[in-house]
Amino acid sequence: MKPFTFFERFSKALRDHPSLSRILVVSTISGGGLIAYSEANVSYSSNGVETGTRKKKVVLLGTGWAGASFLKDLSNSSYEVQVISPRNYFAFTPLLPSVTCGTVEARSVVEPIRNMGRKNVEMSFLEAECFKIDPGKKKVYCRSKQGVDSKGKKQEFDVDYDYLVIATGAQSNTFNIPGVEENCHFLKEVEDAQRIRRTVIDSFEKASLPDLKEEERKRMLHFVVVGGGPTGVEFAAELHDFVTEDLVKLYPKAKNLVQITLLEAADHILTMFDKRITEFAEEKFGRDGVDVKLGSMVVKVNDKEISAKTKGGEVSTIPYGMIVWSTGVGTRPVIKDFMKQIGQGNRRALATNEWLRVEGCDNIYALGDCATINQRKVMEDIANIFKKADKDKSGTLTVKQFQEVMDDIFVRYPQIELYLKSKGMRGIADLLKQANTENGSSKAKEELNIEELKSALSQVDSQVKFLPATGQVAAQQGTYLAKCFDRMEECEKNPEGPIRIRGEGRHRFRPFRYRHLGQFAPLGGEQTAAQLPGDWVSIGHSSQWLWYSVYASKQVSWRTRVLVVSDWMRRFIFGRDSSRI
Amino acid sequence: MKPFTFFERFSKALRDHPSLSRILVVSTISGGGLIAYSEANVSYSSNGVETGTRKKKVVLLGTGWAGASFLKDLSNSSYEVQVISPRNYFAFTPLLPSVTCGTVEARSVVEPIRNMGRKNVEMSFLEAECFKIDPGKKKVYCRSKQGVDSKGKKQEFDVDYDYLVIATGAQSNTFNIPGVEENCHFLKEVEDAQRIRRTVIDSFEKASLPDLKEEERKRMLHFVVVGGGPTGVEFAAELHDFVTEDLVKLYPKAKNLVQITLLEAADHILTMFDKRITEFAEEKFGRDGVDVKLGSMVVKVNDKEISAKTKGGEVSTIPYGMIVWSTGVGTRPVIKDFMKQIGQGNRRALATNEWLRVEGCDNIYALGDCATINQRKVMEDIANIFKKADKDKSGTLTVKQFQEVMDDIFVRYPQIELYLKSKGMRGIADLLKQANTENGSSKAKEELNIEELKSALSQVDSQVKFLPATGQVAAQQGTYLAKCFDRMEECEKNPEGPIRIRGEGRHRFRPFRYRHLGQFAPLGGEQTAAQLPGDWVSIGHSSQWLWYSVYASKQVSWRTRVLVVSDWMRRFIFGRDSSRI
Repeated sequence: MKPFTFFERFSKALRDHPSLSRILVVSTISGGGLIAYSEANVSYSSNGVETGTRKKKVVLLGTGWAGASFLKDLSNSSYEVQVISPRNYFAFTPLLPSVTCGTVEARSVVEPIRNMGRKNVEMSFLEAECFKIDPGKKKVYCRSKQGVDSKGKKQEFDVDYDYLVIATGAQSNTFNIPGVEENCHFLKEVEDAQRIRRTVIDSFEKASLPDLKEEERKRMLHFVVVGGGPTGVEFAAELHDFVTEDLVKLYPKAKNLVQITLLEAADHILTMFDKRITEFAEEKFGRDGVDVKLGSMVVKVNDKEISAKTKGGEVSTIPYGMIVWSTGVGTRPVIKDFMKQIGQGNRRALATNEWLRVEGCDNIYALGDCATINQRKVMEDIANIFKKADKDKSGTLTVKQFQEVMDDIFVRYPQIELYLKSKGMRGIADLLKQANTENGSSKAKEELNIEELKSALSQVDSQVKFLPATGQVAAQQGTYLAKCFDRMEECEKNPEGPIRIRGEGRHRFRPFRYRHLGQFAPLGGEQTAAQLPGDWVSIGHSSQWLWYSVYASKQVSWRTRVLVVSDWMRRFIFGRDSSRI
Repeated sequence: MKPFTFFERFSKALRDHPSLSRILVVSTISGGGLIAYSEANVSYSSNGVETGTRKKKVVLLGTGWAGASFLKDLSNSSYEVQVISPRNYFAFTPLLPSVTCGTVEARSVVEPIRNMGRKNVEMSFLEAECFKIDPGKKKVYCRSKQGVDSKGKKQEFDVDYDYLVIATGAQSNTFNIPGVEENCHFLKEVEDAQRIRRTVIDSFEKASLPDLKEEERKRMLHFVVVGGGPTGVEFAAELHDFVTEDLVKLYPKAKNLVQITLLEAADHILTMFDKRITEFAEEKFGRDGVDVKLGSMVVKVNDKEISAKTKGGEVSTIPYGMIVWSTGVGTRPVIKDFMKQIGQGNRRALATNEWLRVEGCDNIYALGDCATINQRKVMEDIANIFKKADKDKSGTLTVKQFQEVMDDIFVRYPQIELYLKSKGMRGIADLLKQANTENGSSKAKEELNIEELKSALSQVDSQVKFLPATGQVAAQQGTYLAKCFDRMEECEKNPEGPIRIRGEGRHRFRPFRYRHLGQFAPLGGEQTAAQLPGDWVSIGHSSQWLWYSVYASKQVSWRTRVLVVSDWMRRFIFGRDSSRI
């Protein structure tokens, strides 16, 4: 007797044919529906070169965006991957603000990491935290997350690697402001979001107790968000919706006592977005009664009060019930320690080259929030560039000579292209023309010497951009690195990167290049601001639907996709749950 | 712009018309469906008698089955209800074993208590624990669940009542066996179920760490369940399914290391069920590899080992990874303290009369697992019964006289009816006939004196049955008491209960009478045993579907109903999630 064959077959079909994930159709009880087209997965042919010898051991630290993307896309079976992370799941972090208020359930945004690797790649997982990296011995030292023996002592062990991929992410940055660590909630992990949810309900329950002064109740229901970035703004918006749409029905007396305050040190919130979005968000919060205090720098937090300094230097102290701290990223201790070992001690994040390899280390790669790409400056290499281009060693460079190496140089130094674009120039010829004009010569010269080239490119390096600490960057880096690993042997023989400016031959791979696909800022009340490539800005209900579609399609598995979509529907129909579990 | 009007209208319809809940139709993505008819809610007309004076204050302690049913059914607006409980939600406890393994999510089985009262009844909730009841001052003393001031001190306060309804439930019974409290998991609250779920995943992650001995891994993956009642059996079955259906895929090495052991002190598991069910369950566990150790009494638990004594007196000690303790119920401290105050110190639970009023207390009612009904014995009242029936005070009772009061006596002493049934007698005449026969008289006598009545009824009280500590009993008691409260004033004037045997007039209400609707024992692998009224036994896949239908329809709200059903579908399609959150 097998009554569930239909379910089982359907389920098997979903698991076995990931290509089905191109179209998601979820019909609902109500007949309402959502159709979202997920991005077609570009599939790279797997060139698993079985060497016959021992498989190369790749140790991957971290299961966030960078680590999970790397794992998901690595398809060459000549590697053996050992994943080490304190969390045995990947979490879809853009939905964490939704988890804080129960718009989406925590379990709907996580996927076990053991489910995520490809079937042909040997993978194992250890639930442990790496506390030391030894690049000399090619070892990482780890501590199990839980106590193993009866005294609760955490087991320590070391793991060898051939390649190490560091994707541990960052931690919240408290800027060493006193009291932040002890009294504030952060919003980086699933547990944080769950804790915030419980604390919000706790605040409402506490404020409903008898024998309290009115001002005490007000304090308990004063929610402070520090940081006007996308996470902070989204959390404030979610909390506002939760309070006005759901909680005031159950806690009618609390209605006039709740206050949400957003503190931002800069002059505006959402500064990384277009000005129109910033303005819209500030106006919307104004209408909603969310108190946005701009130019407020937090200086101290104690267990009941938070003190902030205005630009004028005035310090004001406000009583609070709960603080959510959401201001930028800081370095994890294990990364700090590793950076000291390799002489990068005074940096904020691990410096890598444009191929994501940690500078000064062989076989160690770093990606995501724990790393930053050190783009080689044109001016450092200017002599070598000149030498490479000046093939006839004439001491001068013709436009033709330059054009021969131009493609490689554009790939190696993307800032040149950005610079040309910013100046409205169409190509290298325009740059040379301008150089000539600056030299006082009205007639276009055919040739440049090295000093003239230097002066033409002198402003180029100002265009070097640091990538933001977002999941989008991390995910693209993970995918990029997996593709490089997949084709390591192949590209060793047939390198496909640009010519080496300082050395001979070509780089094995093209360097990593980030493609910005846009960014959302949900503002509550079913309104979202979206900034898409090409500075296309969209604000309102339509962007909210775009947001739903994109976030549904971006889910890492069919399971989470169905769960997230049904959570949204549940919220529309029944509201958010306020049980304190 | 309101794109969700359809959703909103649908949602409003669901909230405003609870009668819609008679039919539940959930269409699914897969086209599979489940139609479950939930029991039609019998609605009692609300006779809210507005007295013009102050509303009577009902304090309700507890939000379990008894408390939630009382709250849900109380419809007389002349009361003001103050609910006090450490949990601001009602939990559908029969699904807790499913929550332990993620077959159903915790949030799908809870409903905020503030949502559960009727709209016309004034209700407020305090998240606090009652630690003392003072029947003299008509006060309860409570402690808030969370720290309110900065030192984390929990606020204490007292609440006055006119009527007190005690429905605090029971706690797990450790029988004072050393080490149980510290080392075992219980399964009474939602938090317990969530903790068990995390611990199961933790065990698998721990056992996957490097550098461990095989026997240590085996110990970590040895799950022990103590108690072969429905909860223990269901948990063992759920865990077995979770391991074999989901976990072995992700932890292939653990496959041969996992062991589930069920310890039961009696000679069989599921002793409260029909023998056929017991046999089936024991056989199924045997086939599944769940080691059922019957006649094993736990004598000691330490942090790694559990010791059990067989009936022969042999003590064996087994290493374990996790123990779930599920053996009967014990008394909560606040109830123990209250029982001492009112002279019931040596009992297991609060004794009430047949109307659920606590014996020796006015205006205090107790129901659910914290209470037990003290059915008045016939033999205690035999003289009064005789007096009431013997209206002509002749000193003898005729069949006719007896029949006049018979209905009332049957209602007051249900054991008489049970006794007659057990002896195959059709009515009181048969009883009298038997009494005469026993007296040696072959001819049916028309009259009985008191001694003859005593001897006829001497065995009757052996039929007094104690009600089991189940949600079904508690829910029926809550509904019964709510109906009594609703019609308190009305029945004061027109009492509808049986005649008072020891006093004058009639009782206001008919006494509480439990109607057993059957019981399920899910055994895993989509098989359930069901014992329905009339000793109808059903085992297998069909009962599993009955189980799904009944449990879906019994959900307290549309929200939880939809969530539970979609959780089940999610499990069929995608399996259970093993992320450690």
